[in-house]
Amino acid sequence: MIYLAIDIGGTSIKGGFYEESGNCLKGFSFPTHGDLPGTESFAAFISNLKNEVEAFADRDSIVAAGIGCPGTIDSLKGICNFANNLDWHEVNIREAIESIIHRPVFVTNDANAALLGEMTYGDCKKYRSAILLTLGTGIGGGIYLNGELFDGEEGKGAELGHMVIVKDGEPCTCGRKGCFEAYASATALIRHGQEGVARNPNSLLAKSLVTAKSIFDAAKAGDVLANECVDWYVEHLGIGVLNYINIFRPQAIIFSGGVSNAGDRLLNPLREYLEKENWGIAGRWCAKPVLAIASLGDRSGRLGALALAVRKSK
Amino acid sequence: MIYLAIDIGGTSIKGGFYEESGNCLKGFSFPTHGDLPGTESFAAFISNLKNEVEAFADRDSIVAAGIGCPGTIDSLKGICNFANNLDWHEVNIREAIESIIHRPVFVTNDANAALLGEMTYGDCKKYRSAILLTLGTGIGGGIYLNGELFDGEEGKGAELGHMVIVKDGEPCTCGRKGCFEAYASATALIRHGQEGVARNPNSLLAKSLVTAKSIFDAAKAGDVLANECVDWYVEHLGIGVLNYINIFRPQAIIFSGGVSNAGDRLLNPLREYLEKENWGIAGRWCAKPVLAIASLGDRSGRLGALALAVRKSK
Repeated sequence: MIYLAIDIGGTSIKGGFYEESGNCLKGFSFPTHGDLPGTESFAAFISNLKNEVEAFADRDSIVAAGIGCPGTIDSLKGICNFANNLDWHEVNIREAIESIIHRPVFVTNDANAALLGEMTYGDCKKYRSAILLTLGTGIGGGIYLNGELFDGEEGKGAELGHMVIVKDGEPCTCGRKGCFEAYASATALIRHGQEGVARNPNSLLAKSLVTAKSIFDAAKAGDVLANECVDWYVEHLGIGVLNYINIFRPQAIIFSGGVSNAGDRLLNPLREYLEKENWGIAGRWCAKPVLAIASLGDRSGRLGALALAVRKSK
Repeated sequence: MIYLAIDIGGTSIKGGFYEESGNCLKGFSFPTHGDLPGTESFAAFISNLKNEVEAFADRDSIVAAGIGCPGTIDSLKGICNFANNLDWHEVNIREAIESIIHRPVFVTNDANAALLGEMTYGDCKKYRSAILLTLGTGIGGGIYLNGELFDGEEGKGAELGHMVIVKDGEPCTCGRKGCFEAYASATALIRHGQEGVARNPNSLLAKSLVTAKSIFDAAKAGDVLANECVDWYVEHLGIGVLNYINIFRPQAIIFSGGVSNAGDRLLNPLREYLEKENWGIAGRWCAKPVLAIASLGDRSGRLGALALAVRKSK
């Protein structure tokens, strides 16, 4: 039995023909063409995929496909309602790919796919429950409970970036104010760093382009401004993470996305914050979740798409 | 098959011998004795319960017991780690009751029990997913997903009152600042009303004891201060509810506890708030959850304890 697994990203679409074990029999990759109108980039994707499938000798052994896609996904219908970076609107991914492989196609949000990959093939596969937070342009989220992905009605849940933590705070892309994403995404960290640089043009941080990486690097080098940025970021990330610990009390919290590349330089101060805040509730004994960086790197989405296809087609 | 179901409350302990249908063969009630030290009130509970079981003719048909208990519950072990109002500390409820009935005993948090009751025997039994918020002294919470209760590692999850919505806001009993509970519990509403009365001694609200009910009643009668209190409360409740909608996208949100007695006078302005805030995310089509008041009244906890016993013993 062979599964088609695809991770649609903002820059490239990566996929492959896989065995259930995670073994990739043949991989492929094509550009997303985010510069083209959405209808054209989607048509190019389907055309490229058709060529790949037709060129794959063992195509008759494909039993199902799993797809991780950014944006708002209707996982029941297999439709991408809206993906900003791709300019995709009400795109029926399931129908288009089923017409190529003539087998069931399952679609989920990219963060859900990444979490499913980590929980099936990554270091966290030993846990029954976990929350994934993708700290990138925004904050993506995934919820895994009792050994299963939970994505809410029509797959529209797990919008973990859109929890207000600062009433009347920074405006968020969702239309609300003070969302977690507006304080703990890479975008928020960079915004805070740029504001600091404007006030402190002589800081080390001012000497290069402000990125999540440059902030963590300058903090390590002892730059005062950069350290203030990291403290600011960790406090806001900590508030949101602690909210999710109180809500889910999961076994693990997994971080992915750009900011997660800071590794222990992110996790260590975050653990200190959580200790100081009693991991949620003072005086009550509660299990402390493991804090982990996603272990599969950029393969988590594809392997999660594989896990989706395997699980849903059983 | 008969089930023993018990709801432990701050004032009284109510229970009964039930059939799976929800039919109560014999009910009982005794005072909680919150005035006594916890060891004594627990011993009195167990002694009273023993008498009830021994007096129940059909006691050999009991197959399991379900218990809803306030406080921090270790649902795996059946222990109440801590219940403030009862002065109970590390009380092994399962062991004590199993020694009476010699059948399996299952224990959960009181809010979880109420939610399970509503989802099994109440108006919301047609839904697969719901969030319950108990708007009382604090905010209790329950999470029901894919037809099952989710209560986190060791039953320590679903602390839905302890989500920070106002960074550096009002102090909360949990040790953090700005929790949902510190703005949307009955206690918070009353605190806000009392602060208003201190500033406006001639308001209608100042003429009686400030309670959640007196605030909603005075608001209905046109009192400016009381209406400001309701607006303030609904905005904060709305922030938290909308956070939970984005996280879970559940089919229903169920309200119980003192403030929920306001019924449509609470739900109508809350719906208006949610409409104004696009039910979460501007420009994205999402299913709107049903907003409902708990339908079983004070029976929800007992019927939830029954549902727990029935489900867990199958």
